[in-house]
Amino acid sequence: MATIKDVSKLAGVSVATVSRYLNKNGYVSKEAAATISAVIDKLNYRPNNIARSLAGMKTATIGLMVPDILNPFFPELARSIEDAANEYGYTVMLCNTDNDSLKEQKYIDTLLQKQVDGIIISSYTIEPEHLNGLQKQSIPVVLMDNVFSNDSVVSFTVENRRGGELAVEHLLTQGCSKIAHICGPLTITSSRERTAGFEDASRRTDWFTPSLIGYSDFTVNGGYSTMKELLALHPNLDGVFASNDLMAAGALKALQEAGKRVPRDVKVIGFDGIGLEMITPELSTIAQPIYELGKTAMDSLVGLIRKEPDIVTDRVFPVTLIAKQSTMNE
Amino acid sequence: MATIKDVSKLAGVSVATVSRYLNKNGYVSKEAAATISAVIDKLNYRPNNIARSLAGMKTATIGLMVPDILNPFFPELARSIEDAANEYGYTVMLCNTDNDSLKEQKYIDTLLQKQVDGIIISSYTIEPEHLNGLQKQSIPVVLMDNVFSNDSVVSFTVENRRGGELAVEHLLTQGCSKIAHICGPLTITSSRERTAGFEDASRRTDWFTPSLIGYSDFTVNGGYSTMKELLALHPNLDGVFASNDLMAAGALKALQEAGKRVPRDVKVIGFDGIGLEMITPELSTIAQPIYELGKTAMDSLVGLIRKEPDIVTDRVFPVTLIAKQSTMNE
Repeated sequence: MATIKDVSKLAGVSVATVSRYLNKNGYVSKEAAATISAVIDKLNYRPNNIARSLAGMKTATIGLMVPDILNPFFPELARSIEDAANEYGYTVMLCNTDNDSLKEQKYIDTLLQKQVDGIIISSYTIEPEHLNGLQKQSIPVVLMDNVFSNDSVVSFTVENRRGGELAVEHLLTQGCSKIAHICGPLTITSSRERTAGFEDASRRTDWFTPSLIGYSDFTVNGGYSTMKELLALHPNLDGVFASNDLMAAGALKALQEAGKRVPRDVKVIGFDGIGLEMITPELSTIAQPIYELGKTAMDSLVGLIRKEPDIVTDRVFPVTLIAKQSTMNE
Repeated sequence: MATIKDVSKLAGVSVATVSRYLNKNGYVSKEAAATISAVIDKLNYRPNNIARSLAGMKTATIGLMVPDILNPFFPELARSIEDAANEYGYTVMLCNTDNDSLKEQKYIDTLLQKQVDGIIISSYTIEPEHLNGLQKQSIPVVLMDNVFSNDSVVSFTVENRRGGELAVEHLLTQGCSKIAHICGPLTITSSRERTAGFEDASRRTDWFTPSLIGYSDFTVNGGYSTMKELLALHPNLDGVFASNDLMAAGALKALQEAGKRVPRDVKVIGFDGIGLEMITPELSTIAQPIYELGKTAMDSLVGLIRKEPDIVTDRVFPVTLIAKQSTMNE
């Protein structure tokens, strides 16, 4: 690999001049600039350390740990983080952890070995003690979708509980009078919160009964089979709130197979706001600001890396009702 | 950061013993192993260079360039590559290029600066001359979905043309007698090939006319509007082959809105085999072996990095017809 000294020597200028040229900082004559540019090209020199050290970077690389990039929520999050990282001059290492604690721990070790400047972790399963190694080495970390009581970790999440309540309120406004709920894994905080929101709004009504809650797993197939079970128990249900959009899509399938028309017979709403524009009828949802979440996480991580004084920490983002065909009154 | 010397000193054993312990290669007494293990833990020592140099790695990192991780084809590819990379001890840097040549070039520069061991590029737009910088630095590269006549680049693709033909043959077998085609961007080789396959099979029939081909853009919304245009021109069409699954999903929406029943009135088939289990009716497709493609690409890249003699190069993978509800005879 060519060094800045090699460039300086071959171009016949001082190292300081090459440095000024590279940093676009200070005077460099046109002739010198042209020569330096030609030499850089000829030697295939890559000034990798200069810009970095200016911004306090070690490797200009961050780690992004997600459960599974195949769940459509995570490509959206990854894209927003990668876009923001790119603007800051960072590249992103993608790690799929499958919510497996051992795999998470192994990835954290690997990312530390690779001397990443920071890590963004979206995990349902991670515990504060897993972050010990990171804190020992003072590696900045931002957590998504998981809030620890532990103040020392920066974390972002959304109004999951309020979102669950909002979903039921919307179905009630649209005229539903018996609303079932397909809930996600109870091991996941955000999932439990959405179900708590469903209960907040439902317990006030006279139709509520616990058997209206079906337990599922955040997948399309899970939503499909849980919807079938709920229909068998409550054939006259007229509204469904599923704790994510994938399960809502599965519920739509089960309802159509059972001869129920959506939205005429049963109204359905999901949660997340992932781009499921391919399904018919179009799905109403409680949308998370996914792109903003990812961007804010990256902004905060960079703030931590640069040791800036005013960093956004522990923010709960609002959710938004997006009403589409699946809850419409015809 | 602690070094192997620090470990040796504190554990009271030689550097060679620590190295034997780390590489699980040669005799280390039980007592020494226990002490080394405790010291490694205490110092938070990470043996980052040993395993690497054994496998000919520089940074144990590879770059993965994809057009856009939001297109559901690419999470599947990224996941298979990341799984295989993980087994080989590599981590993956994710780069979204948006099929923008400038962005691609910038990412290649960045990945070179970061001294990745190799790069997998899935790009519709990349040209051989873009790879000059990589070849200068002898960085191993594997290309997906893009075959150059240039023999020096390893590349993988699938039987796109045969797949297009297969789609039409399937629709004909299912009784269709007027088949429209929603084609993807003509700038994309694999897209042109699929359309050529459509023409191979259609030109033999008596119903074929060029206006049965509608030009679109590989998105759900594109497929939706192109389907509407095709229906306006040919209200009696009874089969549709879309060059990817997203456009096929858009076509299903347009057909349903126009009061056409799928599969009774019109049969629809897509291409790719991405997991669109959320749509109703379930979509027939010409499936690419996405997971195998990603895994083979990673295997070959590692072969190139290790300078192994027998590396799989330039392979065209077979495609498979997956018949689901959308082309079924009721």
